[in-house]
Amino acid sequence: MSVPGCFDESFQRQFHQLLEARRDVRSFKSDPVPDAVVEELVAVTRLSPSVGFSQPWRFVRVDSTERREAVVASFERANAAALASYEGERAALYARLKLAGFREAPVHLAVFCDDATDTGKGLGAKTMPETRAFSTTMAIYTLWLAARARGIGVGWVSILDPREVERALDVPEGWRFIAYLCLGYPASYENTPELLRAGWEDVDPRSTHLTIR
Amino acid sequence: MSVPGCFDESFQRQFHQLLEARRDVRSFKSDPVPDAVVEELVAVTRLSPSVGFSQPWRFVRVDSTERREAVVASFERANAAALASYEGERAALYARLKLAGFREAPVHLAVFCDDATDTGKGLGAKTMPETRAFSTTMAIYTLWLAARARGIGVGWVSILDPREVERALDVPEGWRFIAYLCLGYPASYENTPELLRAGWEDVDPRSTHLTIR
Repeated sequence: MSVPGCFDESFQRQFHQLLEARRDVRSFKSDPVPDAVVEELVAVTRLSPSVGFSQPWRFVRVDSTERREAVVASFERANAAALASYEGERAALYARLKLAGFREAPVHLAVFCDDATDTGKGLGAKTMPETRAFSTTMAIYTLWLAARARGIGVGWVSILDPREVERALDVPEGWRFIAYLCLGYPASYENTPELLRAGWEDVDPRSTHLTIR
Repeated sequence: MSVPGCFDESFQRQFHQLLEARRDVRSFKSDPVPDAVVEELVAVTRLSPSVGFSQPWRFVRVDSTERREAVVASFERANAAALASYEGERAALYARLKLAGFREAPVHLAVFCDDATDTGKGLGAKTMPETRAFSTTMAIYTLWLAARARGIGVGWVSILDPREVERALDVPEGWRFIAYLCLGYPASYENTPELLRAGWEDVDPRSTHLTIR
């Protein structure tokens, strides 16, 4: 930092490249990711913001084949139901999309929000208890960016029944399922969102339009 | 990037510093932030992940004094109610905390999730519609980190009644309030969370503990 508080331009440029390179990955190489690296990525989430410093995220590494299969089965049911909700060309396009990389990804992480935590003493969450789940989401994004900086890809699977995942992983009472992450070295590095490349959806200018009030 | 897909160590170190420096800021200098910088920060959110590429975040810049006052009034009501829920030492500590920087922050941004958007065609959100709000949260975090890289601080205020903010800002039907952000140059740059420094809460080791299943 040459100017106090401001990171230099070279860093800012590279940070922009990191954001561009941060893709949702569904095609992985089967090369293992060292345990120490996974632990490091989970450890870096301590730097994430959380409502009232509640730090409510809980990471579960899913290693058991049986539990992985239960999650995959939940995905397959939800995905079949989703496919059935589309028609014609759209259904054909949906059917061609690869929406998860369960089989190849060496590391599976399920992420929960501990809605029952007393940490933070409820500060900031009384009128908006959902901010605990939002904090958990930002912890996931911290891990996602830190992983990509190390060349590791992350794919977030949300085509799942949350209650089924909670049961399959036998998590403590009060833990709410937020995300299922597949981690591994990507089969290829892309800078364009897969759903844009596949023709599923376009850039929506409303997301970067600034409404003035 | 010297190794394909992997960012170099110097960048990784600086990225870690950015995560450390990314604080929730409640004390701002009154120096203006140029409009072009605010627009740039909103524009960078196009690089954020979103469920089914739905890009559901909507940014509203709150410039009108009347609307800002309505939001501050909502905060003051919610904050008084929160204070009343604590007792003794804890209440005294809560009363001493500065939880928002409405008055000094030159820029106010309200962030909404467009739950009614058709963008993304519902992909990935059928069993977990809350992933649209999670996507919005990650867009906020993208802006937050990009702002901090430029020396600009962000404070996320959640001590608000969401319905009151939606009414005060007269947003379209279907937009759900997610966050109210104060932006500006921080009065000081800190690397330690304010609630940790103030003795409100400690580090919770459960957030970085890896449960194995």
